[in-house]
Amino acid sequence: MSQIPSIPKGTRDHGPDAMAKREYIFSTIKTVFQRYGYMPLETPAMELLTTLTGKYGDEGDRLLFKVLNSGDFLEGATDEMLAGRDLGGIARVACEKGLRYDLTVPFARFVVQHRDEIAFPFKRYQVQPVWRADRPQKGRYREFYQCDVDVIGSDSLMNEAELVQIMDDVFEKLGIRTRLLINNRKILAGIAEVAGCPGKLTEMTAAIDKLEKIGREKVGEELRERGVSRAAAERIDAFLGVPGDNRTVLYTLGKALQESETGMKGIAELEEVMDLAGATGMEVKVEPTLARGLSYYTGAIFEVKALDAEIGSVTGGGRYDDLTGIFGMPGVSGVGISFGADRIFDVMERLQLFPRESITATRFLFANFGAKETRACMSLVRQLREKGCNAEMYPDAVKIKKQMAYADKKGIPFVVMLGEREMTNGTVVVKTMATGEQREMPADEFMNS
Amino acid sequence: MSQIPSIPKGTRDHGPDAMAKREYIFSTIKTVFQRYGYMPLETPAMELLTTLTGKYGDEGDRLLFKVLNSGDFLEGATDEMLAGRDLGGIARVACEKGLRYDLTVPFARFVVQHRDEIAFPFKRYQVQPVWRADRPQKGRYREFYQCDVDVIGSDSLMNEAELVQIMDDVFEKLGIRTRLLINNRKILAGIAEVAGCPGKLTEMTAAIDKLEKIGREKVGEELRERGVSRAAAERIDAFLGVPGDNRTVLYTLGKALQESETGMKGIAELEEVMDLAGATGMEVKVEPTLARGLSYYTGAIFEVKALDAEIGSVTGGGRYDDLTGIFGMPGVSGVGISFGADRIFDVMERLQLFPRESITATRFLFANFGAKETRACMSLVRQLREKGCNAEMYPDAVKIKKQMAYADKKGIPFVVMLGEREMTNGTVVVKTMATGEQREMPADEFMNS
Repeated sequence: MSQIPSIPKGTRDHGPDAMAKREYIFSTIKTVFQRYGYMPLETPAMELLTTLTGKYGDEGDRLLFKVLNSGDFLEGATDEMLAGRDLGGIARVACEKGLRYDLTVPFARFVVQHRDEIAFPFKRYQVQPVWRADRPQKGRYREFYQCDVDVIGSDSLMNEAELVQIMDDVFEKLGIRTRLLINNRKILAGIAEVAGCPGKLTEMTAAIDKLEKIGREKVGEELRERGVSRAAAERIDAFLGVPGDNRTVLYTLGKALQESETGMKGIAELEEVMDLAGATGMEVKVEPTLARGLSYYTGAIFEVKALDAEIGSVTGGGRYDDLTGIFGMPGVSGVGISFGADRIFDVMERLQLFPRESITATRFLFANFGAKETRACMSLVRQLREKGCNAEMYPDAVKIKKQMAYADKKGIPFVVMLGEREMTNGTVVVKTMATGEQREMPADEFMNS
Repeated sequence: MSQIPSIPKGTRDHGPDAMAKREYIFSTIKTVFQRYGYMPLETPAMELLTTLTGKYGDEGDRLLFKVLNSGDFLEGATDEMLAGRDLGGIARVACEKGLRYDLTVPFARFVVQHRDEIAFPFKRYQVQPVWRADRPQKGRYREFYQCDVDVIGSDSLMNEAELVQIMDDVFEKLGIRTRLLINNRKILAGIAEVAGCPGKLTEMTAAIDKLEKIGREKVGEELRERGVSRAAAERIDAFLGVPGDNRTVLYTLGKALQESETGMKGIAELEEVMDLAGATGMEVKVEPTLARGLSYYTGAIFEVKALDAEIGSVTGGGRYDDLTGIFGMPGVSGVGISFGADRIFDVMERLQLFPRESITATRFLFANFGAKETRACMSLVRQLREKGCNAEMYPDAVKIKKQMAYADKKGIPFVVMLGEREMTNGTVVVKTMATGEQREMPADEFMNS
C-alpha cells in the first residue's frame, strides 16, 4: 500500500500547466476548423475488432490494444487452443473490442454506418486520443491525441485549397513559422511512367520517401533492391533534385512529364490548388518526391514542417479515393489532414510561443487572514468572477508566506491582501508577484481597474 | 464486407449536432471552474489494474474493462490455470491494465504520485470519459463523460461554500432551474447516536437513502431488517419527515440532536457553508436524510435536482477525509462534486434550453455556380472568416436545389448567391433559410453587415 502508485508505460498525466497549453492548441485549431464549416465528431474509444483488424497491416494489428470480454471470456476457446497456448486464437475469442488506433478508420466506419443521415459533402473534425501498443520511446507514446479534419463526398479541388488555408491559419495563429510541402500522387505516377516502370509505383515511392533521411545515392540503391531497373532508377534520380522555385520546378516537371497524361493531370491539379488557395503566410514548396507512405493517397499530398525546430512534420495529409471501400461503400472521395498535437506542443515549448494568458488561469489570489476578513474577501472575489475574471481565495488562514508560495507555484500574478487595517480603511493591498512591489489602493478603484 | 459496420453495445458516436451541444455544456462548466481557480487535469484512459482493483467493491471490480497485455499474454499462466479455465487467475496474469472506471481514483493516484510537485490545496477539474462494463440500458452507457471538480488538502468550509456557488453559477448559465439538497454526514451520525444505534450508521443511511423511492413505511421495515431495534427505528422515523423551511428544519434538528456533539457540529458546519455561500439563485434545501450512498463522505453532502424534469440528480458530491489513504497517503481531506453530463444534456434537450448559437456552427453557405464565381466567392468567404465568422462555400457546382438541401440539413441559416449577374452588378443575393426570403444587396454592404 505504501508503494508509490504509477501509470502504464508510454502513457502520461497532463497536469494543469500542460493542460492549459494543450487546450490552447486544441481550441486554436478547432476554432479555425469551425471557420471553414467543419463540424465536430467523437467516436467511442472502443471499436469492434472486426472494424479495426486488417486496416493497418500486420504490424498495425499487432499494435492494437485488445479489451477482454466481460464474463466468461474463454467461452469460445476450445481445450486445444488453451492446451496449445494458441495466442492468436484465444485473443480472437476472448476479445471482441479494441481501442481505436487512429481517427481515420472510425471516421470511415461512422460515414458508412450513418450514410443515410449525413449531409454530404461531410466536413468533420475530430480531436481525440488514440492508442498504440508501440515500444515506448522518447517522443513516442502509447496514448496520444490526433487532430483530424476531413471532407468526404466531394472531388472539388476547392477542398484541397481550403485545407491549405486552414494549415496557414492554424500556424499563423499559433505563431509557428512553417513550410508546406505539396505534391500529387499523379505526379509520382507520372514519374514512374516516364521512367519506364509504371508497375513499380509503390516500390518507387517507398524508396524516394526516404530521400531526406538516407540521401540520393542510397535511394538509387534502394530502388535497385526493390526491383527497379538501372535505367529506370537513373531516370527517377533526375527528379530527386529538381532545383529552383515553384515556377521553375513546375516548368521542369511539365517538360519531363509531357508524355504522361497522368503526370500532366497531377501538375494541373497542383497548380489549381495553389491558385485557389491564394497567397499564404507560410512558405509553400512544390516537392515532387513527397510521398508520405504512399498507397493511401490518390491526389494531393501535404506535409508541414516547422522552420525553427528540427522535429519532423507537424501536419500531413492528402486526398484518398476509397476510404469507405473497406466497409463496403466504394467510390467516395475525400481529402483530409492531421495535426500532430504532441509535436506542435514541443515546438511551441522550445520556441516559447505559448502566450502568458494560456499558461496562467488565475489572475488574483486573495490572501486569507481569518474568518472576518474572509467574508469581506469573498464578496469581492464573487464580484470579480461575475465580471469574468478568474480569482481565488486561499481557503485557510495559514502563514502568509505559505500563501505566497502557493501563488508562486501556481503562477498567479497578483496577490490581494485585505487585513483588518485595510477593512477599516476601505482599501486593499495588491502585490505584483513578478516584482514584489506592493501597492495600497481603495477597494473600489481595484475593483474597477 | 458489405455488412454495415457498428460499434460496441453501450457506446455512442456523437455526431455534429450532439457534439456542438456537448461542447456548449462542457465549456460552460469549465469556464465556471476556472473562475474559481480550478485547473484542468487529464489522466490516461488506461490505469494499472493494481491502481483500480479493490477500490469500487466486488461489483465494481467485475465492471472494470481489462486490456490484454501485448505479446505473450499467457506467459504468467500455468498449465493448471488454463486446463481449469481459471478466469480470475488468467485475467490477472493476462491483463495488467484496465480502463478507468471513474475520475476519483485516478485523481487520488495522481495526487499521491506527484505529491512533491503539487501546490496544495490542489484545485483541479477533470472532464473525461470513463468506462464500465455495465449491462447497457436506457440512459446507461458503457462509455460516458464525468465532469469532476475537487479541492484536496484543505479543511476550510469555504471550499464547500464555493462549490455551492459553482453549482449555482453553472445551472444559472445553462438556464436549468434546480434545487440543491444539502446535508452533513455528521448530522446522520448524530441521528444514529440519539436514536441509540451509533454502531448502525452505515445500515441506517443505506435504508434512509431509499426514502424517496420506497417511502417512509418501507424504510422502517428496511431498518428493522438491517438489525436496527424497533425503538431506534421509531426514533429515526421522526427525522424522515421534518417539515418546514430550512430555518425550521435546522431548529428542529438542533433540538433533537442536542445530546450529540457530532450532530451539533454537523448542524454548525452546514449553517456556516450556507452562510458563506450567500444568496444563490437556486433553491437550497436542508435535507437531513440525504446520504448519497454513505461511507465515502465525512462532512458535507450535496445533491442537485432539476426542477422541471424528472431525471434523478444532475450533480452530487461531498467531503471525504481519506481519499488518498488507499494509496498510502493518509489524512488528506478533500471536497468535490461531479456534474452528470448525460443527464444535463437530456434535461436541456427536453426543455429546449440549448441556445441557437450552440447548435449552428456555420452562419453562411456560399452557393457554387462554377469556376469563375467560385474564385469571387472564395475571396469573400476568406474575408468573412478573418472577421471571425463561420462561413463555407459549397465545393461542387451541382444543382442549386441540392446545395439548398445541404444548407437545410446542416442548419445553416443563410445561403449567399453570387452568380454571373451579381458579379456584374457587384451584388450578392442572401436567402434566409427559415423564411425563404431572398434579398439582393451590394456586396460591400453584405460584408459590413
